[in-house]
Amino acid sequence: MSEITATYIVHDAKHNPEKKAEGIALGLTVGSWTDLPELDQRQLKKHKGRVVSVEGSSLDHNSETVATIKIAYPALNFSSDLPAILTTVFGKLSLDGKVKLVDLEFGKELKKAFPGPRFGIEGIRRKLGVHDRPLLMSIFKGVIGRDMDFLLKQLKKQSLGGVDLIKDDEILFENELTPIEKRVTFGKQVLEEVYETTGHRTLYAANLTGRTSQLKDKARKAAELGADALLFNVFAYGLDVLQELREDDEIGIPIMAHPAVSGALTSADEYGFSHSLLLGKLIRYAGADFSLFPSPYGSVALEKEQALSIADALTSKDVFKRAFPVPSAGIHPGMVPLLINDFGVDSIINAGGGVHGHPGGAQGGGKAFRQAIETVLQEKSLEEGALEHAELKTALGLWGSSEAVAK
Amino acid sequence: MSEITATYIVHDAKHNPEKKAEGIALGLTVGSWTDLPELDQRQLKKHKGRVVSVEGSSLDHNSETVATIKIAYPALNFSSDLPAILTTVFGKLSLDGKVKLVDLEFGKELKKAFPGPRFGIEGIRRKLGVHDRPLLMSIFKGVIGRDMDFLLKQLKKQSLGGVDLIKDDEILFENELTPIEKRVTFGKQVLEEVYETTGHRTLYAANLTGRTSQLKDKARKAAELGADALLFNVFAYGLDVLQELREDDEIGIPIMAHPAVSGALTSADEYGFSHSLLLGKLIRYAGADFSLFPSPYGSVALEKEQALSIADALTSKDVFKRAFPVPSAGIHPGMVPLLINDFGVDSIINAGGGVHGHPGGAQGGGKAFRQAIETVLQEKSLEEGALEHAELKTALGLWGSSEAVAK
Repeated sequence: MSEITATYIVHDAKHNPEKKAEGIALGLTVGSWTDLPELDQRQLKKHKGRVVSVEGSSLDHNSETVATIKIAYPALNFSSDLPAILTTVFGKLSLDGKVKLVDLEFGKELKKAFPGPRFGIEGIRRKLGVHDRPLLMSIFKGVIGRDMDFLLKQLKKQSLGGVDLIKDDEILFENELTPIEKRVTFGKQVLEEVYETTGHRTLYAANLTGRTSQLKDKARKAAELGADALLFNVFAYGLDVLQELREDDEIGIPIMAHPAVSGALTSADEYGFSHSLLLGKLIRYAGADFSLFPSPYGSVALEKEQALSIADALTSKDVFKRAFPVPSAGIHPGMVPLLINDFGVDSIINAGGGVHGHPGGAQGGGKAFRQAIETVLQEKSLEEGALEHAELKTALGLWGSSEAVAK
Repeated sequence: MSEITATYIVHDAKHNPEKKAEGIALGLTVGSWTDLPELDQRQLKKHKGRVVSVEGSSLDHNSETVATIKIAYPALNFSSDLPAILTTVFGKLSLDGKVKLVDLEFGKELKKAFPGPRFGIEGIRRKLGVHDRPLLMSIFKGVIGRDMDFLLKQLKKQSLGGVDLIKDDEILFENELTPIEKRVTFGKQVLEEVYETTGHRTLYAANLTGRTSQLKDKARKAAELGADALLFNVFAYGLDVLQELREDDEIGIPIMAHPAVSGALTSADEYGFSHSLLLGKLIRYAGADFSLFPSPYGSVALEKEQALSIADALTSKDVFKRAFPVPSAGIHPGMVPLLINDFGVDSIINAGGGVHGHPGGAQGGGKAFRQAIETVLQEKSLEEGALEHAELKTALGLWGSSEAVAK
């Protein structure tokens, strides 16, 4: 029988995490047990939650006992969708004092209900024909209130800089000046021109926004118009909405999950979800090909251990394809050695200001990043690379290099 | 021009909340300002975020400056839906250190994009013909793995006890034994029988579950079959999904928002959403007729100030109908004086164990609650009421009374 096993970190003022765990296992399944007639116990046994383990009882600063508990819930109790799973394992429980949901292990049968990424790392690499280096992504900047002409110029410069992917700003919604149909249609033309001129292919992820029930139609339309990929603010909607977009074969293009609003669910030590579960495992299972999250180095920073745990959940061995980790925010070319060292070749280097803020513009910025990547893969220092590459030299002069920090 | 004004509590290690506020107002709208050419400034002025106020700079235990900042975002920047609004005001920002979103004030024009409750307090009261007392709700218990016969017996006992509303357990999902169509169809028959026998009308809220895109069809089907109301785990789906259910005229029945999973968004002092915004204002604007939340007294407790702030947001003067506050969890008849004192007559007294655990069964439990309500509205003490009412006397003997605490 398939199960889902949840791992929680609880803080227990009553210093009896074993009892608390038993209360959760019953309270979130059959309700009560010892007072049930034997006949009922026999009938309900297959529905009963099970305490798998209770470990590590230390005291926190409030002298409450901190313990890691694992509880297995029979998959029989819920329909095989994330809303039912989340309500079961963390519905009422999320309201019940200090408790953090750190992991969910899906049973083999249960996993079959989830799609995982449609393309994954290998599929995205095939689309781009790039197999041996981290991909480079850049972000539109300052596009609110701007017209198509402004956007297309920015798009072209970024592509000419050699970036592999360009994503919309996540706060660009449907608007009269730059609706998604125009962005996709004319953006594609610009990127085709660059490809014909330079041989360099860039994929553009357009922000899919609006009312929930209209998203599939919009996404199909965007795909029909030739959209390369979709950016999606999954946590402003719901994980199941992401999964339904992934499952729709008429959409059929890569999906990039943006972490907007997710900080409300992950930031607290004692509440909410772990980063690796929410931005890693669940995003991957629901079917995103890319997951963006704060890098450990930049302006909006995550602890390194947390950022690495997300990347691990996106790429570790599983029945699903691997999704691209995209550590983001405040990234400049001097951080490329750090990024490759920490996240490996199968990751995406994603920059906004670090591309657009280059004295040579977005084109110069893109080049500087590509030069930094090439330099690192040649096992040279950025200082050595800067001797060969003008744009990289300029970037290092402006932002410095984090190699020293890495050592 | 319509705006939305967000109130945040931020913790600033740099002790310059004014600068932080300005950074947010720009970063979440036009990106930059002082370095823009004058022509661009003129064009983008109407899109620029505006710092309304920065107040109260105290130091927290980490010696960071704590400040309350208000920022107004032009509604022009986003489509009039909650995912766009949340992404704008708390997208990237939710990831950026200690910041809690405590309120959103919607401009008059922007409010027109939201439905509010279809029925609200007055509409629900009209359905029940009960206008002068708090309503009484009870919850199915221990229904996982059980068959229709078990459910219907529980339903009948609760209704015979005089409860006004009965809700499904939020962890009851689609299953072969008790699918929603059967629960609604046969549940209705049972409640009609009780009505014909006793003249007492009970409404039954069935749990709407499953994949997001199938919810509307299921809800319409349930409404066609005569469902009185729907229970909905809105935070396992998304606020916009709730709103779309509310807006569908073919559904057209009351919606009860369950707080499952919401603790992950509200519990931390320094992160996420305030209780009043998430479980109060946004639930009301999106269109729920009822909002459940932990009461300040029971087993899963919320601070009293927080619980009251939710009730206030559900019922305060606004262009929308008022939604019923449903303070829940661990409620027994002895708490009725406290509940009415704190939440008033326009609230719902909601109990699970406090109804089912009564020595006279759910029927006795329901009666004890109704007797407690009657007693309090007659301005008598529960002890006085117990002299007249056997079930209430039994309940007080078992669970005690919280009147003493209230004084």
